[in-house]
Amino acid sequence: MKTDVQIAQEATMLPISEVAAKLGIDEEKLIHYGKYKAKVSLGLLEELKDKPDGKLVLVTAINPTPAGEGKTTTNIGLSMGLNKIGKTAITALREPSLGPSFGVKGGAAGGGYSQVVPMEDINLHFTGDFHAITTAHNLISALLDNHIHQGNVLNIDPRRVVWKRVLDMNDRALRDIVIGLGGKPNGMPREDGFDITVASEIMAIFCLSKDLEDFKARVGEIIVAYKYDGSPVFAKDLQAQGAVALLMKDAVNPNLVQTLENTPALIHGGPFANIAHGCNSMLATKLALKMAEYTVTEAGFGADLGAEKFFDIKCRFGGLKPDAAVIVATVRALKYNGGVKKDELGNENLEALAKGFENLEKHIENINKFGVPAVVAINKFPTDTEAELNYVLERCKSLGAEAVLSEVWGKGGEGGVAMAEAVVRVCETKESSFKPLYDVEDSIKTKIEKIAKEVYGADGVDFTKACEKTIANIEKLGFDKMPICMAKTQYSLSDDPTLLGRPRGFSITVRDIKVSRGAGFLVALTGEIMTMPGLPKVPAANNIDILPSGEIVGLF
Amino acid sequence: MKTDVQIAQEATMLPISEVAAKLGIDEEKLIHYGKYKAKVSLGLLEELKDKPDGKLVLVTAINPTPAGEGKTTTNIGLSMGLNKIGKTAITALREPSLGPSFGVKGGAAGGGYSQVVPMEDINLHFTGDFHAITTAHNLISALLDNHIHQGNVLNIDPRRVVWKRVLDMNDRALRDIVIGLGGKPNGMPREDGFDITVASEIMAIFCLSKDLEDFKARVGEIIVAYKYDGSPVFAKDLQAQGAVALLMKDAVNPNLVQTLENTPALIHGGPFANIAHGCNSMLATKLALKMAEYTVTEAGFGADLGAEKFFDIKCRFGGLKPDAAVIVATVRALKYNGGVKKDELGNENLEALAKGFENLEKHIENINKFGVPAVVAINKFPTDTEAELNYVLERCKSLGAEAVLSEVWGKGGEGGVAMAEAVVRVCETKESSFKPLYDVEDSIKTKIEKIAKEVYGADGVDFTKACEKTIANIEKLGFDKMPICMAKTQYSLSDDPTLLGRPRGFSITVRDIKVSRGAGFLVALTGEIMTMPGLPKVPAANNIDILPSGEIVGLF
Repeated sequence: MKTDVQIAQEATMLPISEVAAKLGIDEEKLIHYGKYKAKVSLGLLEELKDKPDGKLVLVTAINPTPAGEGKTTTNIGLSMGLNKIGKTAITALREPSLGPSFGVKGGAAGGGYSQVVPMEDINLHFTGDFHAITTAHNLISALLDNHIHQGNVLNIDPRRVVWKRVLDMNDRALRDIVIGLGGKPNGMPREDGFDITVASEIMAIFCLSKDLEDFKARVGEIIVAYKYDGSPVFAKDLQAQGAVALLMKDAVNPNLVQTLENTPALIHGGPFANIAHGCNSMLATKLALKMAEYTVTEAGFGADLGAEKFFDIKCRFGGLKPDAAVIVATVRALKYNGGVKKDELGNENLEALAKGFENLEKHIENINKFGVPAVVAINKFPTDTEAELNYVLERCKSLGAEAVLSEVWGKGGEGGVAMAEAVVRVCETKESSFKPLYDVEDSIKTKIEKIAKEVYGADGVDFTKACEKTIANIEKLGFDKMPICMAKTQYSLSDDPTLLGRPRGFSITVRDIKVSRGAGFLVALTGEIMTMPGLPKVPAANNIDILPSGEIVGLF
Repeated sequence: MKTDVQIAQEATMLPISEVAAKLGIDEEKLIHYGKYKAKVSLGLLEELKDKPDGKLVLVTAINPTPAGEGKTTTNIGLSMGLNKIGKTAITALREPSLGPSFGVKGGAAGGGYSQVVPMEDINLHFTGDFHAITTAHNLISALLDNHIHQGNVLNIDPRRVVWKRVLDMNDRALRDIVIGLGGKPNGMPREDGFDITVASEIMAIFCLSKDLEDFKARVGEIIVAYKYDGSPVFAKDLQAQGAVALLMKDAVNPNLVQTLENTPALIHGGPFANIAHGCNSMLATKLALKMAEYTVTEAGFGADLGAEKFFDIKCRFGGLKPDAAVIVATVRALKYNGGVKKDELGNENLEALAKGFENLEKHIENINKFGVPAVVAINKFPTDTEAELNYVLERCKSLGAEAVLSEVWGKGGEGGVAMAEAVVRVCETKESSFKPLYDVEDSIKTKIEKIAKEVYGADGVDFTKACEKTIANIEKLGFDKMPICMAKTQYSLSDDPTLLGRPRGFSITVRDIKVSRGAGFLVALTGEIMTMPGLPKVPAANNIDILPSGEIVGLF
């Protein structure tokens, strides 16, 4: 069997100018990065602003399991399937983080015959957007520590700096560090740490901004530290936002590449799906909507986190109206949710499937709560039995959801035709009555409770004493009227990763709230969230190589 | 008076394809980065390998002073001047480091009417080469700390890790840090620090490699730490070199841009001029030599460091034969060398000029010692008097060196015609008998003594006791037969920055030797070398901005 990188390197890519031309993009609107990658100038979005939007389709999933669901692969395959049935489509995805490429094997550019290409570039430096974000982020850090060093006129409390540094690298040794050692010339000693770049608030801002001016203004609002008197210090107090915006002048333009079948793909931005909202940039989505009949986009993790944030944060901020949501599931993952161990997922088990189906059922209900029609895509595996597949299809039907089999991993767009037909049918016959779940004017607790009860199925929410104090302080500062960004385990509808299926009779605990003032949301933390991954015992990097022939080995 | 960025933004750039076409570069050999930047595929160098080389001209300078000499500006202006008199020319320069752009105002892409463009891109992310180096460097760090964390099979002594991390940022707080805090999940606590990216050994290797395979092999030879038994740990022991090479697959291709007058410029690589050799990449220089009659290139700092390393390291490794060296001087800088204070440099002072001229005299002698004909370029300032200019010209002539006035800052190529004519005259009439100063087979001490006595004019060299021990250890390991890379103050021919002019009767002190095994040289440290700059009290970043119109302000 061919590896992903082999399939990708055998692809017949079109010059990116031709992919752009199919969308009606003029050559002068392209900023080339080699032959197969280009940025599309934001000027185009301005030119097209009066054009009506195409359909917006979200691809989301059940709660992720070690079995794998194939959300990105489905996203890509669906867009190719839409092409097969005569619709113009754009696949809109997040840019993968470079760091993890050297840790555990596994790309973030789809798989099998549903990939975006050139995958080796997309998974490495791509067009440099993440490097720009890393630089911009660390410039703020350097300015902050320099301010403290040079006299600290702002009275920044070095114990209360909340702006860590970032690197796009899996590097656990940088999680907790002490900086500024070595005496006065090296600045003020203080505790610090590095997050991975995708966890930067600049990434979240980048993905929610309307344009470079909006981006700059939001960066200025980032809370970087607190003063000795407890009042916040903003990035604008360090006069950082102009230089940060300049560093991002190229990055703000969405990146155009293609799928293995030459479907246009806009891949732009990639914020964490826990402490941030986990969707590609607003600008890429808006641009795609102007250029294609169907924009197929994804959100991180399962629907409880990804779809909820897509709806309540991204769609709210951008005035977007999603027309349909595809929920990806696999028989294997449903059985895992039903209690089957990982190495027994190949055996038929209808009882476990029925039990695990409840997870999917809840996600279908949730999507409908937002007023969005749901389509279930069963990503087919060779071990699935007909009885199992039929069971899932029937159950979905009984819930009023379209359900189809998807074979895009093995067959590309051809394997996504049924899915594409179902999506088109839904978009053409069912009117979306999308509305966010809560009002931003609600209190912080009300907003969190609504999400927990309505989406997770919790009985209620416990706030720790420390969190109560934080909430009171946020209210005092007047930062409470923002959407909530839940940081919760992705493995369960609850905040306990071991509760699979559809947990009932639980409550979730919120330990702290982080103010992402620049991004414009409040992060509710239900547990320890890892914002800097580590490398495994045998890192993928050990087997990665580029041969004298140019052949790349070991990368996925 | 217009600022550099204003002049640059008013430039009429040619599409980079046209610049390339003038050099006979086929479109398929270009990897575009927008309209005005491209990488030139290394395949071209292979295709042209049997073509004879053009002339190689080094631009170097007297010891730098706060008055400024304008070496890069002269480099660019000379190439444009050569065009004016009908010669094809390429200007080959180092890529500027991004970090300093946000510290003290001052670009690294020339100035006035002798600039390379698009200067705002060249000074920021450019084509991402430095970001690739940062990532590659830090991947080795992550692999190293991960190795220690995962059981430390190699017995790496955490107290003897010599591979620091890097960022392309001026950030003093990262100079001395402690990493791996927070308990076992976060790895092994140890002392560490960040250098600026240009100080990475990967940068030096990048600039000395013949191709990606050579680069990979050299990266494997980097000494990253020592074991508890004192033996070295190489990057190849961490199986890092394949992944590092993959990260650099695009970066190895030289970057093509243009001057304000559309002269082709290859800007590629930029290692520190103290702990490394301070020249653009070997690949860019070799490619330039195949494509133009004249390749004009520079080396960092004054001729005592820059030219010596260019000759003894770069030319030795690359088998290059320089045809001429231009030594840039200004009347102001010579007077400063003669003892005049910075704010009195505008006044005529022939006595100080005569005293300061000795600095230039020594550099002319040095260039001749390498068998290379010297041309002195007096970078003219409005405050220079005729008597002063004549004095310098006459003294140069009496030493057998061509000397000309240069007005490239204010007049572009037109102001460099006399300089270009002098360079052509020298190249056509004086045969270069270039040879390196020492034999790599000499002992470490002999090599350092030769440089100190012959080039600096020192009476001798003192080695500290610690250094004697290091030398013995390097000899024992068999790493002593490599060229020397002197890390010395750039402000004086001696190792004391306050000794201006032509110091006599001094000896220099070597405190330590660092083995840059991958780069292939031994760094002799004469004092504390700052490898991570800090930001000033009012960083340039505070005034940098990009306006809604796209206009960039505050950047140089």
